[in-house]
Parts: sequence; C-alpha cells; structure tokens
Amino acid sequence: MTSSASTFPLPPGSTIGILGSGQLGRMLAMAAARLGLKCHIYADGPGPAFDVAAATTIAPYEDETALAAFASAVPVATYEFENIPLPTVAFLSNRIPVRPGAQALAVAQDRLNEKTLARDLGFMTADFAPIDSLADLEAGATKLGLPAILKTRRFGYDGKGQAKILSAADIKSAHATMRGQPAILEKFVEFQSEVSVIAVRGADGAFAAYDATENVHRNHILHTATVPANLKPKAQSAVIAAAKAMAEAVDYIGVLAVEFFALDMARQEVLIINEMAPRVHNSGHWTIDACTTSQFENHIRAVAGWPLGSTARHSNAVTTNLIGADHDGWAKIAADPGAALHLYGKNDARPGRKIGHVTRLSPK
Amino acid sequence: MTSSASTFPLPPGSTIGILGSGQLGRMLAMAAARLGLKCHIYADGPGPAFDVAAATTIAPYEDETALAAFASAVPVATYEFENIPLPTVAFLSNRIPVRPGAQALAVAQDRLNEKTLARDLGFMTADFAPIDSLADLEAGATKLGLPAILKTRRFGYDGKGQAKILSAADIKSAHATMRGQPAILEKFVEFQSEVSVIAVRGADGAFAAYDATENVHRNHILHTATVPANLKPKAQSAVIAAAKAMAEAVDYIGVLAVEFFALDMARQEVLIINEMAPRVHNSGHWTIDACTTSQFENHIRAVAGWPLGSTARHSNAVTTNLIGADHDGWAKIAADPGAALHLYGKNDARPGRKIGHVTRLSPK
Repeated sequence: MTSSASTFPLPPGSTIGILGSGQLGRMLAMAAARLGLKCHIYADGPGPAFDVAAATTIAPYEDETALAAFASAVPVATYEFENIPLPTVAFLSNRIPVRPGAQALAVAQDRLNEKTLARDLGFMTADFAPIDSLADLEAGATKLGLPAILKTRRFGYDGKGQAKILSAADIKSAHATMRGQPAILEKFVEFQSEVSVIAVRGADGAFAAYDATENVHRNHILHTATVPANLKPKAQSAVIAAAKAMAEAVDYIGVLAVEFFALDMARQEVLIINEMAPRVHNSGHWTIDACTTSQFENHIRAVAGWPLGSTARHSNAVTTNLIGADHDGWAKIAADPGAALHLYGKNDARPGRKIGHVTRLSPK
Repeated sequence: MTSSASTFPLPPGSTIGILGSGQLGRMLAMAAARLGLKCHIYADGPGPAFDVAAATTIAPYEDETALAAFASAVPVATYEFENIPLPTVAFLSNRIPVRPGAQALAVAQDRLNEKTLARDLGFMTADFAPIDSLADLEAGATKLGLPAILKTRRFGYDGKGQAKILSAADIKSAHATMRGQPAILEKFVEFQSEVSVIAVRGADGAFAAYDATENVHRNHILHTATVPANLKPKAQSAVIAAAKAMAEAVDYIGVLAVEFFALDMARQEVLIINEMAPRVHNSGHWTIDACTTSQFENHIRAVAGWPLGSTARHSNAVTTNLIGADHDGWAKIAADPGAALHLYGKNDARPGRKIGHVTRLSPK
C-alpha cells in the first residue's frame, strides 16, 4: 500500500529513488537523466550507479532511519535487483509508492511462487515440487523423475544456489548445498533454445512488449541476446501474452522480463515459463541501441507515471556480455566501427563479473 | 603545449575534465559514462551536467588555484562552449592536454579568424571586413555594399551581438550596439537553406563526418535539424571536405560543427562557410538516436584518445529544439510513441532558453 501525496506523472526535475547501485541502476539513472529526471541511489555500498546519480545514500537495506530519510527525499522508489529484502520494500511502501510493488516482488523473488502463478494462469512450466527437507527431496525425485535440478526458492541468480541431481546418489549432497534454505525441485527440461520477453506495464495498466530475444548462456551467465528470436509470429504472440498475464496478475508497474524454454523449435508450440525477473534485464540491453525507447527509459516512465514509450525497434541486434576476463578487450571492441560498447565503470574485474556489453546492429 | 604523463588511450575508469555545466556537458558526461569513463565538471556555477557527473568544481574560469587543482585531478580536459576564455585553456594546456587545443579555439571563437582561415583554405564565405571603429564601419559598408550584418568578433551565439545594417542610416546605431568590441561586417547573404556538418577528428588525425544536416532557425535559435539534408552527393562531399580541411588546418581534436549557407539549392554549387563551432553542436543531437555512436560519444572518444566510432546512421531523423515556453509541452511529447524526448533538467524555463529537444526517426 502507498500513501503518497505526490502527483503523477512526476514532472521533469523530480527525483526517482533507486535501490541498488549496480550497472542496472546506472543505466536506469542515465535513462532518467535523458528525461530530465534526477536519481537518488540507495545502496549498501557504492557502485557503478553512483557516478551518474544526483544523490546517493549508503546504508544497510535494513536501516529504517536511513530508509525513512530516503522516503522523505523521493516521491517514488524502484529497485534494480530482485533480491532486495521484501521488508525493505514493505517499509518504503508505507511511505511512498514503490514500483514494482511488494506483491509483484513476493512472486518474482520466489521460484515456487512464480511457477505456481504461471501454472494458475494456465501456462506451462517444468514440473516442480517444493522442498523443505531431505524427505521432501527424496519424495520429489521419485514423483518428478530424474534428472532434476534443486534450486533455492530465493536469492539465486546466474546459476548460483543450484544443484543438479542426475541420479539418486546425488540427492544427499544436493540437499546439503541448500544449507537448509527453502528449495524447489524442478524436473530437468531438455530445451532447444531460451527466449525472453522484456515487457513494461504502466501505472495505468497500459502494456507493451519488445520483440522476444533469443538467449545463449555460457557458464550459467548470459552470453548473447539476439533479436529477432527464431520464433514464428504465433509463438512470439504466445510468449508476449504470457508475460502480459503474469504482469497483470500481480498488478505490475515497470519493466519485467519473463524467460521461456523452447522445447521444440520445429513445432514452436512448447514454450514453458522458466522465470520472471521484476526488473530491467540483461537480455534487454539491446533496446538501448535498437529502439527509440530503451527498457531503462520505459521502466523510468512507468515508475514516474509517464505514458509508456514505443517498444518498436529500428534494427536487428546482437548483444554480447563482457565478463570479468574480457576487461582488457575494450580497446579492440572500441575500434570495431559497428560495435556499440557499454562499460559499467567497474574498477575490479573479478572472473564472472559483468563489466559491460556490446551491441551490434544490423538492418531489419 | 601539453606536458602530461598520462597514457592515451585513457582506459575505462579514467576521468575526463569538462569545462562548462550546460546541457552539452550533460550529454557529454552521459556519453562518457556509457564508455565506463567518469567526468569531472568545472564551471562557474552549477548546471544540468552536475546531475550526471562523478565530480564537480564550482569556481571562476579565471581562478588559477582551482584550475591547477582541476588539472591535477584529470588527465585531459575539454569544454562544452566556445566562449570559454582562451587564457583558461592556455593555463590548463601547460599542465594537461586540452582537446580541442588553444589554436583551434582561437580560430573558432573569433569570426574574423575563422572566415580568414576558410578563405585561406580556398573556401567561399560572405564578403567581410574587420571593424574596429566607426570609420572602419563606414568604409566597410561602402566597400561591401548594403545590406550587411555587423557582428562582434567574439562571444556571439544564437543571434546575440549582431546588428543588421539595411541602409547607411543604420550605421551609427549598429556601431553603438557593439559597445567598442572588435567586430566584423559581413555582407548580407541571401541563402536558401542552411546546412551543417558535424565532424570528428581523432588524436591520431583520423577524420569522420556525419551526414550533413539541414537546419531551420526561428528567432535566431535553431528550430529543427533534419537529416538527410536536401543535398546532392557532390555538394555533401564538398561540405564534408571543407570541414575536414578546417579541422586539419588547426590540428583539431574532438567534434566540430561547420555551418554552411546554400545560396542556390537548384544548382547546389554555392555553399559558403558561415561559421565553425569547436564543440558538439545542437544540430547534431539527432546522432544520439539515429547512430550507434553519437556526436557526444565521438567527442569523448577523441578526447580520450580512443579510436573514433562509426558516424553511420541507421535512420533518418528530425530534431526539434524545445525552447523556454515549450516547457509544459513535455507530457504531450512523452505520449507521442515515435518521439525520443530529451530534457536537460533545467529548473527554470526562461523564454528563449533551450530546455530539451525531441528527435523523431523514420526509416532510411
């Protein structure tokens, strides 16, 4: 619930509060600046977003004094990562609108909730079972069949918090890696490709989606995102309709990403929902260069109560993530005349850390 | 002259110094951030660029203590407006590279110098005469013929510092408006259209130009910039060649704009140089939305010693300036799905002040 006296749409010159100081917050702040809006970044430590923000707060996400001051300073808040503690969002929501809201976050940050919602809405997902104990896991493995993947319900990303169970011999060790956290067992899905839909829903319920993106991962981290995806129009409509239904079910405001596994590319009929991210998404970075309105701008527009911008694209695009070890490759990419290089200003380049991306456009 | 120990190209994470806190500095800082570079803005007062800068200094441009500290904090400096005092650039240039350099600035910020250079290079300009006294003006009016326009040699922009002389009766009052400043008398040119070339020259001498832009002014302020200009290939090549020759003559580093008057659009043979701006330019704002590398990014690349980015465009574009009184029109433009809206975060909206621009793309 919200109790704000602010008038939406927020006029230019207003300040958007953003929880999180990473590269997504940085790109959100840059999109806000383009619209004449300022950003106030709240994070538990400095990060790439600080360099382009009009104001910053460093405090723990549990610091209610700092959160209250933040809520006094901004008329609306959003967040750049789904692992933001739900109590933080609930605390702020009693003072100012937080977009997307706590309901959407509660679904999206819990794999069991999001899969249950998808099923309730009539969409396909991998078969799954909630796992709270070793007994649950043993029963689940029998019920679903193996191979399967055990995942923490919350706080997983880029393959973290996951354990493969190829045979019954793996059950005990997989359970141990969960360290007692609530988990979900998902039947292993043999998919041929992964696609994602980046969509946006406005404060007025308006909905728009970018063309679906086809994603390739390496070492559990997104490697390339290509648009258009190799999807026929009917399949593309189906995934966008699913994203819309998910967004409406949780009264979503802002940009969300829904990931799908395509089981049979020849028939293109079996697209199952993998997960939903309540934020701008790595697979949508191509929208910066290939669209008039990027995913970042559309998120800011939704959060500020503005009309949504067009999701049309003027070009085809391939975005490649730059990961830790790619750090020294910037000079070569900078010299590639067709490459739109985006670096996040991270001083350290730990292995596996996303330090930038490069998008290459081609005519539609 | 420069005496820096910095190594170019500057690696990501480096800080670019920018003199001036206006909207051009703001858009330069955003382009730098995209490349993982930080910006330190030095200005005599806060402005739109401060909201997106990693560091700021407020001090007079004549404050040598502050300038020395600035030079210690950044490995290179540039400026966002050509009316930066030449001694400021000279002072900094003894400590760090300043790009574009003092030689280029000395030419570009003086109408007599820039027209003389253009003539020396074999290009056409309006006939002109230097004016330092009323006697000079009377003789100049006789020599060039009337109508003519008297302009201050320096510190003019958007029609400021200009007086029309339609007949001999206007001479005395026109001279009085110059308030004793060195001036130039230019024969009135009956032009059919105005085009500009936004070009960039790298630290290594590499040169690239965007397609020429056709510009329409209202009340001496740029109203629309349209690309492509209505120019045949031969004329387009000629204006780009002129921009290249001007840039090379002053060993230019960075983005420059050269404005031309087209006297005869049917023949397209008479294109005369009006002026040169030693900076990113209002008529090149379309490059943000219609190109992979904007004029702002290319300026930052040149200043940082990076390879130039492509100047190719993927779309046609029309940019319209938003001026003071247009401030309340943002909501309507925000609701236009084809419009890329850019607002500069200016809190006041004085009449005649540029507060943003909007670019509309169309397929090539």
